Amino acid sequence: MRKMRRKGLASMAVQTVASTSNPTVDLGPAAALSCRECGHRVPLGPVFACEECFGPLEIAYDFSAYDTEELRRRIEAGPANIWRYAPLLPVPADVADKPNINPGWTKLVKADNLARELGVTGGLYVKDDSGNPTHSFKDRVVAQALEAARAFGFTTLSCSSTGNLAGAVGAAAARAGFRSCVFIPHDLEQGKVVMAAVYGGELVGIEGNYDDVNRFCSELIGDPAGEGWGFVNVNLRPYYAEGSKTLAYEICEQLGWRLPDQLVVPIASGSQLTKIDKGLQELIKLGLVEDRPYKIFGAQAEGCSPVSTAFKAGHDVVRPQKPNTIAKSLAIGNPADGPYVLDIARRTGGAVEDVTDEQVVDAIKLLARTEGIFAETAGGVTVGVTRKLIQDGVLDPTKTTVVLNTGDGLKTLDAVAGTGLTATIRPSLESFREAGLA
Amino acid sequence: MRKMRRKGLASMAVQTVASTSNPTVDLGPAAALSCRECGHRVPLGPVFACEECFGPLEIAYDFSAYDTEELRRRIEAGPANIWRYAPLLPVPADVADKPNINPGWTKLVKADNLARELGVTGGLYVKDDSGNPTHSFKDRVVAQALEAARAFGFTTLSCSSTGNLAGAVGAAAARAGFRSCVFIPHDLEQGKVVMAAVYGGELVGIEGNYDDVNRFCSELIGDPAGEGWGFVNVNLRPYYAEGSKTLAYEICEQLGWRLPDQLVVPIASGSQLTKIDKGLQELIKLGLVEDRPYKIFGAQAEGCSPVSTAFKAGHDVVRPQKPNTIAKSLAIGNPADGPYVLDIARRTGGAVEDVTDEQVVDAIKLLARTEGIFAETAGGVTVGVTRKLIQDGVLDPTKTTVVLNTGDGLKTLDAVAGTGLTATIRPSLESFREAGLA
Repeated sequence: MRKMRRKGLASMAVQTVASTSNPTVDLGPAAALSCRECGHRVPLGPVFACEECFGPLEIAYDFSAYDTEELRRRIEAGPANIWRYAPLLPVPADVADKPNINPGWTKLVKADNLARELGVTGGLYVKDDSGNPTHSFKDRVVAQALEAARAFGFTTLSCSSTGNLAGAVGAAAARAGFRSCVFIPHDLEQGKVVMAAVYGGELVGIEGNYDDVNRFCSELIGDPAGEGWGFVNVNLRPYYAEGSKTLAYEICEQLGWRLPDQLVVPIASGSQLTKIDKGLQELIKLGLVEDRPYKIFGAQAEGCSPVSTAFKAGHDVVRPQKPNTIAKSLAIGNPADGPYVLDIARRTGGAVEDVTDEQVVDAIKLLARTEGIFAETAGGVTVGVTRKLIQDGVLDPTKTTVVLNTGDGLKTLDAVAGTGLTATIRPSLESFREAGLA
Repeated sequence: MRKMRRKGLASMAVQTVASTSNPTVDLGPAAALSCRECGHRVPLGPVFACEECFGPLEIAYDFSAYDTEELRRRIEAGPANIWRYAPLLPVPADVADKPNINPGWTKLVKADNLARELGVTGGLYVKDDSGNPTHSFKDRVVAQALEAARAFGFTTLSCSSTGNLAGAVGAAAARAGFRSCVFIPHDLEQGKVVMAAVYGGELVGIEGNYDDVNRFCSELIGDPAGEGWGFVNVNLRPYYAEGSKTLAYEICEQLGWRLPDQLVVPIASGSQLTKIDKGLQELIKLGLVEDRPYKIFGAQAEGCSPVSTAFKAGHDVVRPQKPNTIAKSLAIGNPADGPYVLDIARRTGGAVEDVTDEQVVDAIKLLARTEGIFAETAGGVTVGVTRKLIQDGVLDPTKTTVVLNTGDGLKTLDAVAGTGLTATIRPSLESFREAGLA
């Protein structure tokens, strides 16, 4: 497992020395970067891989000064966005006063109709992140990356993307007065180009496929031409990834400072699931929720199911796949956090499961029909997997369950393009009655 | 002016008798329906036109029991959606416990970048209603209509629509367990059909144009076949329309219980602007905000500018127009509330202005580029009109100004279809440098 990840990272232009790290950088409770594999610590800076073992770096915090009740009051008195959790994030204390698109505090919908359809009696909730400013959970992670970029004196926010991330970066950069530069394959569909281009930043088409785009971005990060550039999910990745913790915080606070029994989380790189677990563990350690068991379930599309395949086979290693699914926002064939996801699913007593594209479409329609929530394909994956896990007796329908919807159906209209008119009539009451509509 | 409105209503199947009105209907502080023209009062029921003069009916409230400070505390302790204002709306006190899509409490964005571009120094805010569940302000009004439908024992929620309203009705009905039936022209573009169809209700294509659809709906309301049907903006219109008051409430509360000096509001039927004014007046009367002057500005697209034309000509009468603009969600050529809008703009010292489709597109891009907000064409209209009013010296840039964005750019992608790549390069640093991107 370690070998695999090393290989993945070694193929990128790894920037392991904290060349611009600065002891005066104020990122609130963030104390250092720490290697997830060997524990080696380095000062906060725009680095993402350990100089000792090439393992991924993550934020180490100092939460020692917090009093539980005071912290809870401070959070509850905070703004209706992720910055209410500023004391638990790598951001300065005055972050809410800086220009940012302020995502988060999205609805936790009590999904009683869906629960009835699925036979859930213990309480079923949909955490609906389509309510974010650019309608996907990516706003959460980009908002974090932006604050790190600001702290490091960067002036350009960048990414490669074919979807949600492009819009989130474009919008956040615009609000914060950063230059943005988003790299996409030059032949992307016009609709997706428009969604990324409208924010007015640089939108650069690369003559090649998505792999070529990523390879070029890795080159750029290692080159002087990339100086002052924050690639949100590369050299700012340790900060970016922490944004997903806010999903865990919000779910628990919205449940009345209570852990759910079961969570169903989509897997792309696996980072979101990993950080949700980290967030839950923090809340337990801080005394903000009672320490009791919870299970995390990972959801993939069958056409890109490397983690689910490994889970079912009992492997620790995730074998890369070539994605072929309509759930494009989850189509990462070689997920960096795959092994961590396997660890968490097994440790918590959860599972990783996948559904076919047909089941994804059915689940999108099911969620829309029962709860009026129009989810992106990724939401179809989680709802579809929830249904499958219940049918298979893996997920307990008598327990409180939270299912994540991380994006918006308006961005993946093609997935439900078969949906249409239920009747066509002439403009007359006679025709109306004939159609059986009365 | 009265003649005109009468003519408009007379052409519909007017249901003037409160046949199903019921003294036991609990709609909170709503006491009766009252004619906006002659003041005639009737009991609460699914009626929309005065039996005496055919004038439009609106809700009359009894707010007499409220203590200002207690009311303020009650609102502030309420949920993060429109139901925090339940004491001021035609809904039962326990409305927040019923299944509804719970719109509102959308972001009031301090738009400092846009302010700099427009030269506004007094504070510029965008009330961004793209944050609603189906990404338009229609969720607010449909949520009200739904509660009225529930109170009257209706089982079907219906509307004619080619856009935002269809999605809002479909989603709200799904969540609340109502049947929904949305009527559209049979040849609507596939994308719009999908957005309406995904919620799984009846979606009926009418062989004819939009006028034929509306004519058919009017017939249906007057027929036994339409019994138990709530047409949100026809027989439930008095309740539906009140949803727009919540925009006024939220803006003032989000400004710290303060009236803005100036508001720029889009005009379709004119109902939204009229009800925002009603909401502001209520807050003043209830003592929740200081009583001081404010100005309301109405915004239209040049291709559908009947109210703006009347305002500029000094007329009280609004002459119908045949709409021809990309701002489809505002394309009502014979706006029912047009005369009231003229009254309000003149009484408050505001104005009504219009912009060309080209200016609409420019304004959409301006808002996206400066604030990361991707607005529907209606948002391009308000931002464009704001710019024009400042340039013309009509809107005072030293005053606190709130501009409404009532919808989401993802639903009108075509408007900015010309937006695209800023560069195309080969996947090499050399090509990157040649393009001047470094």
